[in-house]
Amino acid sequence: MSRANEGHDTMNGAESLVRTLVGGGVEVAFTNPGTSEMHFVAALDRVDGMRCVLCLFEGGATGAADGYGRMAEKPASTLLHCGPGLGNGLANLHNARRSRTPIVNIVGDHATYHLQYDAPLTSDIEGIARPVSAWVRTSPDSRRVAQDGAEAIAAARTAPGGVATLILPADTAWGEGGAVATVPAVPEREKADPDRMKVAVEALMSGEPTLLFLGDRTLREEGLGLAERICAKTGAKMMAQTSNARIERGAGRVPIERLPYPVDAAIAVLKGLKHLVVIGTTLPVGFFAYPGKPSLLTPPDCTITVLAPPEADQIDALRQLAEAVKAGPAPARPAIARPDVPTRGAIDSATIAQTVAALLPENAIVCDEAVTTGRSFFPPTHAARPHDWLALTGGSIGLGIPMATGAAVACPDRKVVNLQADGSGLYTAQALWTQARENLDVLTVIFANRSYAILRGELAGVGANPGRKALDMLSLDNPAIDWVSLARGFGVEALQAADLDAFVSGMRIGLGRRGPFLIEALL
Amino acid sequence: MSRANEGHDTMNGAESLVRTLVGGGVEVAFTNPGTSEMHFVAALDRVDGMRCVLCLFEGGATGAADGYGRMAEKPASTLLHCGPGLGNGLANLHNARRSRTPIVNIVGDHATYHLQYDAPLTSDIEGIARPVSAWVRTSPDSRRVAQDGAEAIAAARTAPGGVATLILPADTAWGEGGAVATVPAVPEREKADPDRMKVAVEALMSGEPTLLFLGDRTLREEGLGLAERICAKTGAKMMAQTSNARIERGAGRVPIERLPYPVDAAIAVLKGLKHLVVIGTTLPVGFFAYPGKPSLLTPPDCTITVLAPPEADQIDALRQLAEAVKAGPAPARPAIARPDVPTRGAIDSATIAQTVAALLPENAIVCDEAVTTGRSFFPPTHAARPHDWLALTGGSIGLGIPMATGAAVACPDRKVVNLQADGSGLYTAQALWTQARENLDVLTVIFANRSYAILRGELAGVGANPGRKALDMLSLDNPAIDWVSLARGFGVEALQAADLDAFVSGMRIGLGRRGPFLIEALL
Repeated sequence: MSRANEGHDTMNGAESLVRTLVGGGVEVAFTNPGTSEMHFVAALDRVDGMRCVLCLFEGGATGAADGYGRMAEKPASTLLHCGPGLGNGLANLHNARRSRTPIVNIVGDHATYHLQYDAPLTSDIEGIARPVSAWVRTSPDSRRVAQDGAEAIAAARTAPGGVATLILPADTAWGEGGAVATVPAVPEREKADPDRMKVAVEALMSGEPTLLFLGDRTLREEGLGLAERICAKTGAKMMAQTSNARIERGAGRVPIERLPYPVDAAIAVLKGLKHLVVIGTTLPVGFFAYPGKPSLLTPPDCTITVLAPPEADQIDALRQLAEAVKAGPAPARPAIARPDVPTRGAIDSATIAQTVAALLPENAIVCDEAVTTGRSFFPPTHAARPHDWLALTGGSIGLGIPMATGAAVACPDRKVVNLQADGSGLYTAQALWTQARENLDVLTVIFANRSYAILRGELAGVGANPGRKALDMLSLDNPAIDWVSLARGFGVEALQAADLDAFVSGMRIGLGRRGPFLIEALL
Repeated sequence: MSRANEGHDTMNGAESLVRTLVGGGVEVAFTNPGTSEMHFVAALDRVDGMRCVLCLFEGGATGAADGYGRMAEKPASTLLHCGPGLGNGLANLHNARRSRTPIVNIVGDHATYHLQYDAPLTSDIEGIARPVSAWVRTSPDSRRVAQDGAEAIAAARTAPGGVATLILPADTAWGEGGAVATVPAVPEREKADPDRMKVAVEALMSGEPTLLFLGDRTLREEGLGLAERICAKTGAKMMAQTSNARIERGAGRVPIERLPYPVDAAIAVLKGLKHLVVIGTTLPVGFFAYPGKPSLLTPPDCTITVLAPPEADQIDALRQLAEAVKAGPAPARPAIARPDVPTRGAIDSATIAQTVAALLPENAIVCDEAVTTGRSFFPPTHAARPHDWLALTGGSIGLGIPMATGAAVACPDRKVVNLQADGSGLYTAQALWTQARENLDVLTVIFANRSYAILRGELAGVGANPGRKALDMLSLDNPAIDWVSLARGFGVEALQAADLDAFVSGMRIGLGRRGPFLIEALL
């Protein structure tokens, strides 16, 4: 699958890899390089078409690659330094694995012959990579590295999409004899199993309480439209998985609710259900287990049919279902009026959601790591102008600011609004600097409740009886974080909003300008 | 090895584990907990003797545990949340592995029965832990967890010391039937092999150029004293490994130099050597490989004798050597005068080192992540008041601020001075907040060269030819980080020093007060 060298007399491995990446549609690299990656970095100057975005921390690079991949629908690459650099990027690669985002994750390593000496940075990179990667390979030499890169692109793009980790020993980058490679064909998605299709159709036609449980590609306009028609015809209901990589939503689009995060609330909405048909996601299970509560949240007598797992052709499955149930045209959908901004009350979940619903610009991208504050954001924002909603998929906090960074790189003409819990934002706030450096059009809204608020609920949920020390472990107010100072430290302008008027006016300011801006909303 | 329940009628696994940790000498937990750790957190209130130190990011927790363990010479525990939390802590666990620091690394996981559902946070925690851990175990149930904790303490303390990762499924914490366990005996360190001892003595007595190459325990006062006597008798020289967990040094102590980091400089100092005797460390190899340069830096005709690897009884090996060569008493050592503070020049490596040498208080702990700026800090600071010097051992940057935090927790009566490169500090600056929260006596000195300065040298070192894009990947000045704002954002007072006078006066201010303080020195 290699092709001729296109007039380059000689080329080192690094250059052959960069040319292969660009040729394979990988146009952005989110980097935090070190010594072992210097030839890759140097090769970037000899090859047009690769945008390099520097990150101060690897979690920023991997989270940005996730945000980019969700919006661009093709992989960015990372460039990380050895096992520890990969370690720093691991949490957001875990999220990317759960959002099934294609990423070509490039990790430099020592020269192959140097590994035997166990120099300080030596580590088992493949071992660290495997838990988050759909594909892992260590390239053996400079003549092979481009082909490995091409196969990494294909692996990242293979349904359902995932992290392909290519480990690049330094001598595979600096060695000569590289030749550009082309990306192998990616396998087609499999169609739904006919037997399962029959069971799903029977469930839908049974007249019994049935739920279409949806994720992944089904949550874009086409899939949601098909699901809506199926439900209108059969009386089934539809619901999205709790956390989803990307939902196309807002005024004029199909409003879909998410399975609630709290287990009791989830059990309540699934109560009485007789059939569950799953497309593009996993089963409705608790985010965590709690003593005395079930893991699988459907009623015991509910049948479950996994019609199309994430790697299957989800849209085709919906089309087949629609045809089998003889779904009609799209039903009339009652228009919901977009609310005005709130004028009274505190800054809380309700007024924040109302403000976002009122002010969100057309075609915005919402990056949601609002955690507790954001659980009830969906109902009010169905009426917001059309937008994409990107959520924390893997539960590994610290995604929001990097994801917004990557989404803004992918979509420079769209406003990105990062709804960000404060505790989570503190994991990877360094990504604000990348927003400043690249002048990305991101408004970050920090919900400063100054605690790990989610854990206060979780303590009760698991039946733990907290004392002073325990509660102290959930509090971030001693000292209070000053987000305006932090943002300025990273070169991003910011303001603090202590009441609702200041919050609404801050949102107008932040949405009315281009470039990065941060609002610290004191809850 | 369990003992009776000491009057506790019933106890859940979490409480039995906390009691076992405290009983086993683990008195500090550096935590960043989540839902799966809530019972452990709740148990902290029922057990006296465990200090909990909250960190905003797991790299802060693991780096603090490293700094604590280096100074306290016993393990702290961490408390991390699932695979992604461990991932965030991995880079500093890599450093701890290289510094051979005992750490009981506790990672919460889903309840055992919940794992089959592959909920979003599910991951292969053992797989992520193994590359940085000397010992990994997933506890199976609440009756077993205390015993597993006791064995983790023993594993962490087993020579040469290391990271023992205990994975704690939520139901092992909340389940009943826990019973406190006692820590098993730790194996004695092995003595040096007699044949190797003979070879080492012959080398030392040969009259040919011989070097004692030292690390780990040999770099404390006793070991250095023995090495000095051996060298005085035999004419051998002594040198420390490039990066070391802890050196006892300063006025009145044996001044030892480190193997230089740059490969050419290291080859130059080892030139002509006929024999290398290694105690408490690994071979002198390049931190990285460079095209056309060797990995092993001793001359080809130099014999190498690994007399005592890090896990062996290093001090006994030195004692045996001293006896075998009939070493005399400690030689007279010329006193070196402590310098005055510099009064002219720019803020640079030389004037910083001179200022530190002049002002460092008695018994200070220096946490050195100065990277390029700090390479020549040793010669001038041999004359500083006696102090400990803790370095970045594993090459994974982002250790300095957390390590200083942990050292200050271990030694509340000693001043901690963190000499910190700016690029590296940006990985884990959140640890400043923990310093503020715990009112730790840490002076952080940021060397703001606003670049990944080390990589400028590395680009040349690997023979890469940088262009604009490549150089742009090494620059942190667009926008410049404002460290004073960052520090204030995390609740730490700070000042910026733009010239030498301001730097010296800032150092006097920072050293003259108690509690956390930060100086941004513009280089």
